Amino acid sequence: MKDLGHGANINSMAKEYNKNPKDIIDFSSNVNPKVISGLEKYIIEGLAECRSYPDINYTNLKNNISKYISVSQDFIIPGNGATEIIYLLMKSINKRLAILNPTFSEYERSAKLNNLEILHLNLDIENKFEVNMELIKENIDKFDSLFICNPNNPNGKVKDLTELLKLMLENNKLLIVDETFMEFVEDEEKYSLVKYIEKYENLFILKAVTKFFGMPGLRLGYGLSSNKDIIEKIYHYKEPWTINSFADTLSNYIFKDEEYISQSKNYYIQERQYMLKELRSIKNITVYDTDTNFVLIKLSTKSANDIKVQLFKEGNILIRDASNFIGLSNDYIRIAIKSHDENELLIKYMKKILGD
Amino acid sequence: MKDLGHGANINSMAKEYNKNPKDIIDFSSNVNPKVISGLEKYIIEGLAECRSYPDINYTNLKNNISKYISVSQDFIIPGNGATEIIYLLMKSINKRLAILNPTFSEYERSAKLNNLEILHLNLDIENKFEVNMELIKENIDKFDSLFICNPNNPNGKVKDLTELLKLMLENNKLLIVDETFMEFVEDEEKYSLVKYIEKYENLFILKAVTKFFGMPGLRLGYGLSSNKDIIEKIYHYKEPWTINSFADTLSNYIFKDEEYISQSKNYYIQERQYMLKELRSIKNITVYDTDTNFVLIKLSTKSANDIKVQLFKEGNILIRDASNFIGLSNDYIRIAIKSHDENELLIKYMKKILGD
Repeated sequence: MKDLGHGANINSMAKEYNKNPKDIIDFSSNVNPKVISGLEKYIIEGLAECRSYPDINYTNLKNNISKYISVSQDFIIPGNGATEIIYLLMKSINKRLAILNPTFSEYERSAKLNNLEILHLNLDIENKFEVNMELIKENIDKFDSLFICNPNNPNGKVKDLTELLKLMLENNKLLIVDETFMEFVEDEEKYSLVKYIEKYENLFILKAVTKFFGMPGLRLGYGLSSNKDIIEKIYHYKEPWTINSFADTLSNYIFKDEEYISQSKNYYIQERQYMLKELRSIKNITVYDTDTNFVLIKLSTKSANDIKVQLFKEGNILIRDASNFIGLSNDYIRIAIKSHDENELLIKYMKKILGD
Repeated sequence: MKDLGHGANINSMAKEYNKNPKDIIDFSSNVNPKVISGLEKYIIEGLAECRSYPDINYTNLKNNISKYISVSQDFIIPGNGATEIIYLLMKSINKRLAILNPTFSEYERSAKLNNLEILHLNLDIENKFEVNMELIKENIDKFDSLFICNPNNPNGKVKDLTELLKLMLENNKLLIVDETFMEFVEDEEKYSLVKYIEKYENLFILKAVTKFFGMPGLRLGYGLSSNKDIIEKIYHYKEPWTINSFADTLSNYIFKDEEYISQSKNYYIQERQYMLKELRSIKNITVYDTDTNFVLIKLSTKSANDIKVQLFKEGNILIRDASNFIGLSNDYIRIAIKSHDENELLIKYMKKILGD
């Protein structure tokens, strides 16, 4: 694989700096460190299931997701991570796509590979990454679909997209919202657009088990839409059996673990406050507000790469150099909010390097 | 998913005939019934790995495959089953593809979805599905690549493709060989073209863990080629993290299980003889030779669908109606060779229905 510029590249960094990958704490990928308990016994069940082909229609899996998010099975498209759904969606929409930047780079890559015309619009970086409604209105005739991540990666702030959805509906445009970080948000009910899925066909939402349920290696995500045309096109292109039997089996348990869900939510409500307070006591950085499990930081005296290397060498800590996000300069870094002990360690090293 | 015409559709059949899917014996998908022992303890390790992103380069996985098949890591492209590799390959080759039919339907589907020009050539059904070299020579200027499955699905006979490879090399055409059933063959060394991968760039081979290692739900396959241009194109299109952490982890063990490998090989050498002998004692059917883990049968007095329904209703047995393979009429069925007890049961019901 050529370097796609994502985080979590522990192995190559460890090799370069002669460290054991197992000693590195990964703040570069945004995954919930909490562990769903008791999955060991269910994974043995998954191993047995693995000896047959997965159900090509994933009826059981769709049923589990349906109960979790209260959306009809008919509007759920399960995928090998949200990534599979992003790539399928790019094959299934009209030619002209606007992307609100800075954001997750796979939107652009998948759009380019499918020869879409990409219009890069920008969140208002000077104004805390607000959605620039005026800019969208000015360009409304130049795109068919608009892709936004909410809460956005890399800045982590959630937005109320009701006005934007209204604008899209009025102009018959498709709104694509990546909500893979939405479950970390305190007032998820208010901000998530899932409640509009059955009502509006001009909406497509991406979700995943990866981040909030802390299992990127399980490879389970899903798309939501009541747009029959898009669903039909997606299934026209979809490859069979893309989701493994372990994901199918574990879906019987993870979505029902209310204790894990509420503990994770509560943990992040607390820990965000702690992290923002501590980070803001560090010199020479601007710390952006966040509603999710990562924090964007602008450095004033060091480059992103310099502090990334320093933290790696001195603290065995890997952070994300955010300078390859479109619109961000080489002084932006992104850090995940991990377990409290790990967060303390990061803060300690950042204070040591930058001063407090 | 719309119906792609594959086997293993137990759930829909069970629903239609009011049966419990758990009671059905699946002879419609060709999966080794032997179980690799001791994977339970390793799958717990996989669960822990699943809490981080898989290595985007799958270095460990490629290393395990490399040792198993004695091919350099540089020429191994791991995939979410062989299916992912088939679809990527269809994006990465020249426009004109010849397919030797009857064969696995995903070759055609993936080629169509990528707008390839498909030339359907036929194995010589009247001559036991021999590769018709004359037909290929006559059409050599009409295609850039030739797709063949060896041993072929649905007839199960292995072919010596040395002559065909030579013809392709002389004419600078790409030979694509699906060898996902090759490990079942008694003289695998002789028939597999893996030994030519490092030598010839005009060769692409598909392999999978699905069939021989009996784990379709794991979703692990791989492509082999030393053709730099094709490898580069495949990685240009490849989506990140398509292989789950369980597959990555289990690759540390399954390829090294020499006891499983030799026992499976020996079992199939014996069991094929038993199955062919017993099946050939049944009236009104033609039983084709096989070198792998399934058998193609032509019915003389019943349609494929009739006997499929009868076996399902009377014996709780699901077989594959093979009439949707290109070139086969509605009197062909395909049955997997499963455990000896299960095979006995199938023979019993087939004798009961067809007479012996």
